[in-house]
Amino acid sequence: MSADIKQQIIEMVGPDLEQVEKALEENLSPNLPLVREIASHLLFAGGKRLRPLLMIHAARMCGYANGYEILFSTIFEYLHAATLLHDDVVDGADKRRGKAAAHTIWDAPKVVLTGDFLLARALDIASKTRSPRVISVIAHITQAMSQGEIDQMENKGRPDLSEAEYNEIIERKTAVLIQGACRSGAIVAEAPEEEETGLKDYGFHLGMAFQMADDLLDYTATAEELGKNPGADMREGKLTLPLIHSLANADDNDREWILDTMARTEFDPERFAGLKQRLADLGGIAYTGERAVRHVAAAKAALDVFEPSESKTLLNLIADYSITRKV
Amino acid sequence: MSADIKQQIIEMVGPDLEQVEKALEENLSPNLPLVREIASHLLFAGGKRLRPLLMIHAARMCGYANGYEILFSTIFEYLHAATLLHDDVVDGADKRRGKAAAHTIWDAPKVVLTGDFLLARALDIASKTRSPRVISVIAHITQAMSQGEIDQMENKGRPDLSEAEYNEIIERKTAVLIQGACRSGAIVAEAPEEEETGLKDYGFHLGMAFQMADDLLDYTATAEELGKNPGADMREGKLTLPLIHSLANADDNDREWILDTMARTEFDPERFAGLKQRLADLGGIAYTGERAVRHVAAAKAALDVFEPSESKTLLNLIADYSITRKV
Repeated sequence: MSADIKQQIIEMVGPDLEQVEKALEENLSPNLPLVREIASHLLFAGGKRLRPLLMIHAARMCGYANGYEILFSTIFEYLHAATLLHDDVVDGADKRRGKAAAHTIWDAPKVVLTGDFLLARALDIASKTRSPRVISVIAHITQAMSQGEIDQMENKGRPDLSEAEYNEIIERKTAVLIQGACRSGAIVAEAPEEEETGLKDYGFHLGMAFQMADDLLDYTATAEELGKNPGADMREGKLTLPLIHSLANADDNDREWILDTMARTEFDPERFAGLKQRLADLGGIAYTGERAVRHVAAAKAALDVFEPSESKTLLNLIADYSITRKV
Repeated sequence: MSADIKQQIIEMVGPDLEQVEKALEENLSPNLPLVREIASHLLFAGGKRLRPLLMIHAARMCGYANGYEILFSTIFEYLHAATLLHDDVVDGADKRRGKAAAHTIWDAPKVVLTGDFLLARALDIASKTRSPRVISVIAHITQAMSQGEIDQMENKGRPDLSEAEYNEIIERKTAVLIQGACRSGAIVAEAPEEEETGLKDYGFHLGMAFQMADDLLDYTATAEELGKNPGADMREGKLTLPLIHSLANADDNDREWILDTMARTEFDPERFAGLKQRLADLGGIAYTGERAVRHVAAAKAALDVFEPSESKTLLNLIADYSITRKV
């Protein structure tokens, strides 16, 4: 089913995607060659362009027809790239999208400054919407994401992180940006309040489902599928829902074994296989999948306010794809 | 004369300054305690609040009377603090405003993220101006500053930096932000174009003079006055105008001696005294002072378009102060 959905989405977004790629290139110049080089390393490493596509189709679904949706959509890819650059420096991650992380090639300070530059670039394009509400949405995204990342650093390695705390972290880390992209589509289209609320809710639930699926993949996908070693979250001390739920159900023995595994920094395939088995046995995998499915259902329900359209079909497909994808 | 000017300025800005301090505090909450703590360490370490005061009086000079100038002025102090946090991480500076630099107390990544947060906070307040042009000014400031800082890193230690390259660096590093604060005052006041241009030019020349004076102080002030050891720029490999001009006038002997001094990372008071003597003998100190004086004159001339007012008097005093100040 997943391959089918993916194929359908690819056919529907093909022409837009080409234009988004072109706009991302064009809006990066004319700038310092080094900034372009660092930014391009990540930006053109095969991202899915999920956020631009969501903004474009949210706008169209609300009847936007002023012709700037491709330009405006780049805001959310630049913002996304800026946060990835900063997060990789913060986390000390060595890989991203199957390539070496930027800060392992250039000095971390240069990567930080390139992130700042991309944020500024996003802002510059946002000012062209001439909508203070879009600016306000972007400001809230950036505030939430920077605070969320600091919060996650503070909570690193805490084995007693609750599901509620996890939900708050992934909301700030992932959902607010996806939500902001969808909502901004409604704002530039000057959509009525109920449509804006529908897209806001759709974006929130899609973002939550997307991150939960990501956190599941960290325990279920192969290294080739992920473009990095699985279990990276655990080794970085990040507790995600599969672990949180399993720890809550674990007896003392299992609990101790899991915490001991988390404390090891070297990747041991055998030990990791054992962890995966326990996460399955203790219900963490199934529970996370279930929560993600519920968010997908809520995302789709939030679109009920809209009449059928090609963009609506696409947003529904993206919701389904968010939890069936392999990468 | 300097003490007189300073006293006059302090008397004129006293009540505004109190309100700016209050607004800076209030707009930082309610947020994560750690973010507040890191941001406050720098924000409330005795900054001069030059940028907010410039924006407030630029707006008033253009007849702004809607009562939000204090709130809007915090944009430029938050922006300034955000860039200082990132720059200190980038430069590995150990002191700022006489206190330990934030990244020597907290992890550098947390400081980077706090910088991001302050930038977002600035943006959030900027969205309240409901002026896409103010947003655009801020976007250009952030783009210029991040590119400028990368540029400066790339040029570190280059003994052949030209005066034109130096001017470009300090424009991006300092002048664009001061210029943006002044210009935004005109924009929120919906001032006619010639007034906006006047303030834009004033801000540019003031910023250039300010940075040149700063670069002079690095060779002429004492450690107590600076809140850090003098000669820091040189030890970080940053060529500023006193050195650039002196190197251009130096014979082979002096040139070699200066380059050798620059290459040393340990602070040697005797050697530093020798360097100061050469910078004086070779004209670098006098030339830099002369360029700064010219910028001050140009800044004041740019205000000719305005009728006399208290705010105009203040902006003229600030221009004078920029090059007579001791810290």
